[in-house]
Amino acid sequence: MSSLDSLVACFESAFQEEIKKIALTVPQKLYEPVAYSLMIGGKRLRPALMLHAAAIFSGSLDKVMPAAMAIEIFHNFTLLHDDIMDQADMRRGLPTVHRKYNPNVAILSGDAMSILAFKYFARLKSDKLQELFTIFSTTAIEVCEGQQLDMDFETREFVTVSEYLEMIRLKTAVLIAGSLRIGALLANADQADSDLLYEYGVNVGLAFQLQDDWLDVYGDPDIFGKKQGGDICANKKTYLLLKAAEACDSSTLLELNHWLGKSDFDPVQKIAVVTAIYEKTGVSEATRLLMQNYHDKALRALDRMAIPTASKQTLIAFAGEAMVRVK
Amino acid sequence: MSSLDSLVACFESAFQEEIKKIALTVPQKLYEPVAYSLMIGGKRLRPALMLHAAAIFSGSLDKVMPAAMAIEIFHNFTLLHDDIMDQADMRRGLPTVHRKYNPNVAILSGDAMSILAFKYFARLKSDKLQELFTIFSTTAIEVCEGQQLDMDFETREFVTVSEYLEMIRLKTAVLIAGSLRIGALLANADQADSDLLYEYGVNVGLAFQLQDDWLDVYGDPDIFGKKQGGDICANKKTYLLLKAAEACDSSTLLELNHWLGKSDFDPVQKIAVVTAIYEKTGVSEATRLLMQNYHDKALRALDRMAIPTASKQTLIAFAGEAMVRVK
Repeated sequence: MSSLDSLVACFESAFQEEIKKIALTVPQKLYEPVAYSLMIGGKRLRPALMLHAAAIFSGSLDKVMPAAMAIEIFHNFTLLHDDIMDQADMRRGLPTVHRKYNPNVAILSGDAMSILAFKYFARLKSDKLQELFTIFSTTAIEVCEGQQLDMDFETREFVTVSEYLEMIRLKTAVLIAGSLRIGALLANADQADSDLLYEYGVNVGLAFQLQDDWLDVYGDPDIFGKKQGGDICANKKTYLLLKAAEACDSSTLLELNHWLGKSDFDPVQKIAVVTAIYEKTGVSEATRLLMQNYHDKALRALDRMAIPTASKQTLIAFAGEAMVRVK
Repeated sequence: MSSLDSLVACFESAFQEEIKKIALTVPQKLYEPVAYSLMIGGKRLRPALMLHAAAIFSGSLDKVMPAAMAIEIFHNFTLLHDDIMDQADMRRGLPTVHRKYNPNVAILSGDAMSILAFKYFARLKSDKLQELFTIFSTTAIEVCEGQQLDMDFETREFVTVSEYLEMIRLKTAVLIAGSLRIGALLANADQADSDLLYEYGVNVGLAFQLQDDWLDVYGDPDIFGKKQGGDICANKKTYLLLKAAEACDSSTLLELNHWLGKSDFDPVQKIAVVTAIYEKTGVSEATRLLMQNYHDKALRALDRMAIPTASKQTLIAFAGEAMVRVK
């Protein structure tokens, strides 16, 4: 069991106790969906990274726990509201909150979760509370900005690769990076070290999102847990699609646009055609190269930190997972 | 101009500057609806009360301003999301955010507003930051609880008067009371005084909500700005309706339920019948009596505070507005 896995387990056991309390809070119609959404789970990566960041600087895990819970509650709030906006039916194999209950319940329970996150954060005992609240609220609103850009892109004809990278930085990477920064600051790390951990987190977050894009096309569906080509069928503006559109010649672009514009298509055929265009334009390699760049930048940030080798090893291993090709 | 009016004006001028900044923040599609919602306005009562509470204890208004803005942003966030849940088309004479833009924009802009409120709150400089954040987040989540109870009541057949009063305490009164408490604490008022101001605020808030219920039936529509009997036509479980149902005999209850169950009715006739039942059961007087009780409790809380008479006068006059019969 890696040190991150043991922190996930440590967090999970404390968090389940809190979820039980939340589930018993009245009005039940408000808090039951909150508990349901938190119970469904997820990998608890953000809180584990926050706890690890605190541990690096010999911080007490108990002291950090309220912030770890806050970040996990906030993350699940964003998923809950995103699922309403995306009209998603399922999350982690179970009905989404707005399907299991109804959209109004999902809106209000989500609102309560977002506030609950701040309420947990307010349990922190620290002389840096103003700085920590500023980081948390700034990071939280950046996630909303990322979600807005993601929605904007759906209806926009042209999106550049750099706009896309900024979107995933906001929507995915800053919350991972913010978790690390908050954990470090709570353990009294200095500004330089917490900045470097943040830099590591942003770059790892970007690599993970690019991996997600790549796995949709090239991942083993048995291991990845999703059908191949889902993003392609949905015309999702992934890094691969945007990069292909930038790289291809005009006749290929016509063909690509033809398939994107088709409302009635055979999924197998569409996936085959678009994947062939990806092959021709070399976007698989381009994506893996960019992932490698972000991965390497993350490790260079670690290199510049004077922290114990064992602590670094955990973060190096975590970054390495972003480069795994199968799952 | 009362001292509260001048505080509204003082707040408004600072707030408009902030709204201009918010309107220019990118992504514009996220922040433009936020600015629109804040611009539409409202009476800015909560921030003015907060500033007044600080002024009572000789606190600096500049120091309190971030919290005053936070509370106003939070209040407008709740209205924005309530309007989605209620499918309301208009607010303050203008299209609601989800009608002017779309529901997804309204959900996400509301989310951003809720977080923005905490971001403004994090600008506060105070050695009581943990206590203040706890009060703010607790109050904020209570407002959600009140909204949930309000939604629950719509589909429930029986709601008791005491359940109703608890609902309006959470949905309306605690935010007014919390504004006063935060203002007082920021100006270093002691615990006893900030508790008394909170008690004043809860009772005034309850009186105001009961006034709202009463004005729907008995208010002058030219002054009140709403058509008479709107709540009656919508079967809204107001204090008057619940009290009438509790007080009337079984044949009158049958008649009341008959009109509540009718999907096709002449509004004028329904309003006339229900108002006649209100007359028979004396709920107008009962409502005014309860309002008077809350008003008096609010003033008794003030009585117990050793603060300047002029400061009290402002709060006495404000509570008095809850008793005005016409507008």
